[in-house]
Amino acid sequence: MDTIFDSTIDVKMVECLGSDDRIVAAAKVSTLGEETTDEKNVGLIGYLMKNRHGSPFEHGVFTFRVTAPIFVWREHHRHRIASYNEESGRYTQLKPHFYVPGPDRELIQQGKPGAYEFVAGDAQLSSYTQSTIENNSVEAYERYERLLEAGVAKEVARMVLPVNIFSTCYVTMNLRSLMNFLSLRTKSLENSMFKSFPQKEISMVADKYEEFFRGQFPITWDAFNENGRVAP
Amino acid sequence: MDTIFDSTIDVKMVECLGSDDRIVAAAKVSTLGEETTDEKNVGLIGYLMKNRHGSPFEHGVFTFRVTAPIFVWREHHRHRIASYNEESGRYTQLKPHFYVPGPDRELIQQGKPGAYEFVAGDAQLSSYTQSTIENNSVEAYERYERLLEAGVAKEVARMVLPVNIFSTCYVTMNLRSLMNFLSLRTKSLENSMFKSFPQKEISMVADKYEEFFRGQFPITWDAFNENGRVAP
Amino acid sequence: MDTIFDSTIDVKMVECLGSDDRIVAAAKVSTLGEETTDEKNVGLIGYLMKNRHGSPFEHGVFTFRVTAPIFVWREHHRHRIASYNEESGRYTQLKPHFYVPGPDRELIQQGKPGAYEFVAGDAQLSSYTQSTIENNSVEAYERYERLLEAGVAKEVARMVLPVNIFSTCYVTMNLRSLMNFLSLRTKSLENSMFKSFPQKEISMVADKYEEFFRGQFPITWDAFNENGRVAP
Amino acid sequence: MDTIFDSTIDVKMVECLGSDDRIVAAAKVSTLGEETTDEKNVGLIGYLMKNRHGSPFEHGVFTFRVTAPIFVWREHHRHRIASYNEESGRYTQLKPHFYVPGPDRELIQQGKPGAYEFVAGDAQLSSYTQSTIENNSVEAYERYERLLEAGVAKEVARMVLPVNIFSTCYVTMNLRSLMNFLSLRTKSLENSMFKSFPQKEISMVADKYEEFFRGQFPITWDAFNENGRVAP
Repeated sequence: MDTIFDSTIDVKMVECLGSDDRIVAAAKVSTLGEETTDEKNVGLIGYLMKNRHGSPFEHGVFTFRVTAPIFVWREHHRHRIASYNEESGRYTQLKPHFYVPGPDRELIQQGKPGAYEFVAGDAQLSSYTQSTIENNSVEAYERYERLLEAGVAKEVARMVLPVNIFSTCYVTMNLRSLMNFLSLRTKSLENSMFKSFPQKEISMVADKYEEFFRGQFPITWDAFNENGRVAP
Repeated sequence: MDTIFDSTIDVKMVECLGSDDRIVAAAKVSTLGEETTDEKNVGLIGYLMKNRHGSPFEHGVFTFRVTAPIFVWREHHRHRIASYNEESGRYTQLKPHFYVPGPDRELIQQGKPGAYEFVAGDAQLSSYTQSTIENNSVEAYERYERLLEAGVAKEVARMVLPVNIFSTCYVTMNLRSLMNFLSLRTKSLENSMFKSFPQKEISMVADKYEEFFRGQFPITWDAFNENGRVAP
Repeated sequence: MDTIFDSTIDVKMVECLGSDDRIVAAAKVSTLGEETTDEKNVGLIGYLMKNRHGSPFEHGVFTFRVTAPIFVWREHHRHRIASYNEESGRYTQLKPHFYVPGPDRELIQQGKPGAYEFVAGDAQLSSYTQSTIENNSVEAYERYERLLEAGVAKEVARMVLPVNIFSTCYVTMNLRSLMNFLSLRTKSLENSMFKSFPQKEISMVADKYEEFFRGQFPITWDAFNENGRVAP
Repeated sequence: MDTIFDSTIDVKMVECLGSDDRIVAAAKVSTLGEETTDEKNVGLIGYLMKNRHGSPFEHGVFTFRVTAPIFVWREHHRHRIASYNEESGRYTQLKPHFYVPGPDRELIQQGKPGAYEFVAGDAQLSSYTQSTIENNSVEAYERYERLLEAGVAKEVARMVLPVNIFSTCYVTMNLRSLMNFLSLRTKSLENSMFKSFPQKEISMVADKYEEFFRGQFPITWDAFNENGRVAP
């Protein structure tokens, strides 16, 4: 198989349950049949967010299909209020599809733990990093193939594969858990109540999640941003 | 307000995320675009259920709107893998709407704890029970109203209300959690792997959930029944 | 049985897992055998709390045994990251033990929903409330006994019982979930980042939990208070 | 740093909350002060296990400290009802400590997906596999070091590391979740109700967990084995 190197991460929205209106209906419970204006929804959703009444936001649910490197999944799966189904290297041969940082990926870390800043290196450092990661990927995958050809089980042969190999996963997550994910996994903005220092690559997933969130739940997304970008 | 007595429980399906096809896609992950026949789905879903690969079923999610008495909610809320928004007796005056067992409700419990059987009493016992519960509801609600009129806060006044008062709740629950709910909260059938002894009234909720489950995920529902009605 | 009225709620600590040192060890992971001074612990725990690194606090776990009225359990059980075992009115006859607000319970609610203030009524209102709740409890319990004597099943007879009846429950909860509980269920203080408006009676449970928290994890408790009393 | 190769996995019990007696007390709730004989405990715990009353087992909780390769953690972390704190490759340089299958590790997989059997290869295959994995580990680690020396951030440099590198993690898990873990992650026995096909290396973790379980909760462990080794 031909090796593929990629510096982007693919996120597709599969389906979405609920809406801003549904969140309002759940919060009010008894008013399902009642007409509410958009304006009232804005007020109520802002109130819920500000006062940390988080449960109504759990009635919004997304299913995503994401292809990301293993080192990203290792962080992602630590978010436990979510449902995951991932490709298994025990049952199928993994494809030679590897993440390699693009030229815009800042490579140098400054400052102290918990408050790292990243800055770009020179072009040479970028190219050295890229070629090192690519060579490593190719050689590891060759070993993987040779072990498979020798008759070694997939679950053993995969031990040589590096954590930048891509893997695909279905992710179902409710909106409350998603907002928690975003508060930790997007780069913090001026309006963020807490500082977050996510690794660039998981923030690439988070940024795409956030676009879908904004598109499907615009009022909730506004309220999230107006209240410190912290999950209620 | 006029008191309403009811011996039924209302369950509405608000929305449903996913399908049998989605469960198959999540289990196979890499085959999203691939055509699968219904027949193959039946085989794969049966395999997942039998071998207790439960996670693909989490990509099916229901939102229900349920009006049930408090003693049912007390059991329902113990199912923690679910999202709830319920009417609050702190913020609104509860309505005089009470559950009273219907004439077909078997009232006499026989056998030992954990294996109770229920049998009907005579018509007199049924009518005595019904009138006792109705009188209790009416008198408690009158006390509730008098306390409110005297200026007592809703959250204090409600202390006099009995657990057969109705309350409405939004419930969002994934299919894996729902199958666990059904295994414990429907009366066990001949094909059930484990005996369950649910209270009649929560089984009335469960039976309605099961109808929606059967309608939306017919292949999964079949597999659930062919594999002991136990959650994978 | 003699009816007992109570205006207090009983909370016992059964056992506690972990310590401030354990939280530090979990956060540092690789330093289990390493000596750390108390001073360093204070700094690290403060850092974790401030930056919302919540997971190390999950290695502290409490088991409590609590006797509280049903209307308190109804709120308590909505905290889903916890383990509960409660007395069952299906298997045992509930005892005539009822919560009645004490003379210091403020009964009058002012202001708008979400920002209620409570003030005391006059002595007459307090005594009227108390006697109404007591009479209601006694009459409901008499009906309960008569239904049981007539042969009606416990699970049906209990429908007449009001929500101020006491029930005992084992609660196991980790420290992260407990801090969330406290942030919502204790009266907010000057240093609280968010306003909370808990019902008095659940705050009586929360206040006792907080004493045990303070005793077992003094450094974490300080950090909780210095960082807005919000769960990390 | 000198590279270390290891074919074993280290599991230490840090602390344990609860006991068989505690589970009984939680199940009975009202009988805390009551003397119970061991014999009665055996009967009650067997009853709970058989009838799938799982919640009392949640009052038993373990904290473990585990050093395992990343491909094991990838499976372990999918058990969401647990608390984890793991070494971070973003903040510290990972040590050159790699898992390599020992000579007794069966390398050849036969049969179809979901029902694989493993058999040993010849000595040559074992030695070829071992040397391939060792060489891969050494070369990847050299690249890791060179990237770090060139000034590349730890979180980027680690992308070259293979999934057989060791990582240490604190794990806190209750007994109900642990039994679920064991039912899926130990090799199924004759008395297992469901077939499980865990990867050898995660079963090495599970087997050690099971020893601690057996030591701390002997009555519960017996009941687990007498009831199909399935979590209640």
